[in-house]
Amino acid sequence: MNASLPAIAIRDVPSAFTDALVTRFGTQFSQAMAVREQHGRDESAFTHVPPPCGVVFALSTADVSDAVALAAHYRVPVIPFGVGSSLEGHLLAVQGGISVDVSRMNQVLRIDAEDLTVTVQPGVTRNAVNAAVKDQGLFFPIDPGADASIGGMSATRASGTNAVRYGTMRENVLALEVVTASGEIIRTGTRAKKSSAGYDLTRLMVGSEGTLGVMTEITLKLYPLPEAVSAAVCSFPSIEAAVRATIHIIQMGVPIARCEFLDAQTVGMVNKHAKLNLREEAMLLMEFHGSPAGVKEQAEIVQDIATDLGGQAFEWATTPEERTKLWAARHNAYFAAIQSRPGCRAISTDTCVPISRLADCLLDSVEEANATGLPYFLLGHVGDGNFHFGYLIDPDSESERSTAEALNHKLVNRALALGGTCTGEHGIGLHKMDFLRTEAGEGAVAMMRAIKTALDPHNIMNPGKIFS
Amino acid sequence: MNASLPAIAIRDVPSAFTDALVTRFGTQFSQAMAVREQHGRDESAFTHVPPPCGVVFALSTADVSDAVALAAHYRVPVIPFGVGSSLEGHLLAVQGGISVDVSRMNQVLRIDAEDLTVTVQPGVTRNAVNAAVKDQGLFFPIDPGADASIGGMSATRASGTNAVRYGTMRENVLALEVVTASGEIIRTGTRAKKSSAGYDLTRLMVGSEGTLGVMTEITLKLYPLPEAVSAAVCSFPSIEAAVRATIHIIQMGVPIARCEFLDAQTVGMVNKHAKLNLREEAMLLMEFHGSPAGVKEQAEIVQDIATDLGGQAFEWATTPEERTKLWAARHNAYFAAIQSRPGCRAISTDTCVPISRLADCLLDSVEEANATGLPYFLLGHVGDGNFHFGYLIDPDSESERSTAEALNHKLVNRALALGGTCTGEHGIGLHKMDFLRTEAGEGAVAMMRAIKTALDPHNIMNPGKIFS
Repeated sequence: MNASLPAIAIRDVPSAFTDALVTRFGTQFSQAMAVREQHGRDESAFTHVPPPCGVVFALSTADVSDAVALAAHYRVPVIPFGVGSSLEGHLLAVQGGISVDVSRMNQVLRIDAEDLTVTVQPGVTRNAVNAAVKDQGLFFPIDPGADASIGGMSATRASGTNAVRYGTMRENVLALEVVTASGEIIRTGTRAKKSSAGYDLTRLMVGSEGTLGVMTEITLKLYPLPEAVSAAVCSFPSIEAAVRATIHIIQMGVPIARCEFLDAQTVGMVNKHAKLNLREEAMLLMEFHGSPAGVKEQAEIVQDIATDLGGQAFEWATTPEERTKLWAARHNAYFAAIQSRPGCRAISTDTCVPISRLADCLLDSVEEANATGLPYFLLGHVGDGNFHFGYLIDPDSESERSTAEALNHKLVNRALALGGTCTGEHGIGLHKMDFLRTEAGEGAVAMMRAIKTALDPHNIMNPGKIFS
Repeated sequence: MNASLPAIAIRDVPSAFTDALVTRFGTQFSQAMAVREQHGRDESAFTHVPPPCGVVFALSTADVSDAVALAAHYRVPVIPFGVGSSLEGHLLAVQGGISVDVSRMNQVLRIDAEDLTVTVQPGVTRNAVNAAVKDQGLFFPIDPGADASIGGMSATRASGTNAVRYGTMRENVLALEVVTASGEIIRTGTRAKKSSAGYDLTRLMVGSEGTLGVMTEITLKLYPLPEAVSAAVCSFPSIEAAVRATIHIIQMGVPIARCEFLDAQTVGMVNKHAKLNLREEAMLLMEFHGSPAGVKEQAEIVQDIATDLGGQAFEWATTPEERTKLWAARHNAYFAAIQSRPGCRAISTDTCVPISRLADCLLDSVEEANATGLPYFLLGHVGDGNFHFGYLIDPDSESERSTAEALNHKLVNRALALGGTCTGEHGIGLHKMDFLRTEAGEGAVAMMRAIKTALDPHNIMNPGKIFS
């Protein structure tokens, strides 16, 4: 068993509850082991947790509401499930209960092109949103590596490569429909761009990791597709040079749309996986959005900054095909890394620091990681001060796992000391509960717990996550 | 007594409590009637509420903590007070208790220019923030009309003229120190640009109107002063033309920094008050930020849109002096309007709708207001879909008050039907509690109440606001 997992205390599930689910949901409720197992894991390095006792495939808000109301009645845990791409163990049934799979709630409900908003069901993925709104000349910028569900992205306050310009799910979810822990259906927010109407329940739900309710409709901000887009790749003589270039770009106020870092060995993994020939040096992968003149202007400023820091091979990808290939390679970096060591699992770090402290945080952590000899990938949304080491461990090796955990521990403590956070975009889940206490302090965690208890008195919504 | 105010139920204040405040705070605690009266009113049209029983002038977080801890012990209401510029009755002691005045907590604690952040005490005003960071080439964009305190602006989720580009307090508060309802001191958020670490307590506190705690330190985002700025004034043949121009500008994705509307009679009030000669027609007052080329490009697009809609007299104010004069006039429009009818009070509306519905919402409401003959001003942050009627009532005339309330009622119902909110930036306070129930629904308000009860079990933090 994973040493860093909290004790697992599976709760009893009365047969009256599963009988009631069978009656209400028929074939939409599955207790088949293969289905349960598929819903009892995610992309995290956690294993060896028994799967949920069954899976409800919800097709509507009413389905979710009825499933949660039954679970509330019988005091059974409910774990919302989108596409299963969590990196932090959010989907593991550490206290048993059922999974409520919303992946079939995949309708785009309304596109308000003139208002730059779209309302979707939670099982719609980010790529599906973009496919639906592209014809209207619009796009949705938030892009975690996986083609995650909008429900899951909202629940973890996800971001990705465009956040440096367009913000995260925090800034881009306008309104929600939520099934609360009692099965009640409420709405938060409106389609208006701003509001001062009472407590910000939308922002409270975004990032609550399924512990306060299940989101059943999500209204997102959209953006006009930029008139001009160009992407650039620039290699640097050192990690430090690449990071310092990033810091200058941000401090100059350049409205760069993407500013991604990969270290030399991660570029190598990407080259191999995507059959590319990128220079295997520390690299910034950048994108500029705006008018043709604006894009040119931004790129010139950035090129000057990069050149001053020894950046070389400033290469352009201006055709959509070239850009798509480049960004697909970037988005697949995680999978490229996993494939570089067959059978491995990645323990992914997610610290985010104020931009001026990025070099301090990153360079010391690279040195520590190198000293252990553990293979890793390293990339980051460095424009936001956010980066990820992925320590590629043999999941059966306790020693590798504890080496990785120790590296992460040092990294997080460093980031917190520099005024940062233990998680920029992945969430707390099972992995970072101790870090949350250190970061937020006992008082703030007690406040979170008080909210949780007030809104979910029987602790049925994804219990055992965020707080032990 | 004001018909629309909820019943006032002043709670008993034990003399042991005021004795304890005298002992702890000495001359920092005042029970003088003039001081109490000054803290028992704001810029709202509410009057005739007895003032708080005393005022603590806090100089430090420890002062706030001790005052709240004493109030918690004796179950006495606490009303946080900044500069008193609320428009919604937030500062009125409808259940008695004490005012905790944080205006002397006016230190800029740290400027992290490289990270584009500043940390201030809550009594620092928005102009004081800007004065402190200007030398570093930075600015803080959020600008409600008044030179409000950052504490008050955070508590009401304020915005202003720059929100169309830079967002509101929701997007621009990164981290907080908060004294909770028990007097405990906690921290929320970090200086990192983004985080997925647990519930978003920062966003929960922002907009909570003093009902969940007192903010004692606030970390804000800053922005590099734009390389180039230009302002433009454009007159339109009708309100509709001005609004349609706005809608086009936003839908085109022009990154306009300010897009303010004034109707013809409000321009007249501003002319008189600020000794200007603006054309007394429906007007857009705009500002563009960017590189010199970028600003020019934005202005050209906007000029084309305006011209298509009959916009005339597209005039430029490119020197800082001209711009300052223009924006000062805009910021003083509220006071200009008040002075246009000596002795009046303004009942200010604050609806915000999705941009495509702006014309529908505005034009019908203008017609209704004109039909009553009540004087009013009309202006708005139309780039956000947010506008304000200010009905200028004789505070002693119940009939004028009820006419104004009826107009507001119709306007809010219209905005809600169009997918909008009853308040874009002023907050709920005393005035909009019924509207909040209609807008959010009983379920969402019950959730807000559950949070309030969990975090403030004795209901001492600014009781009687947001919820009746």
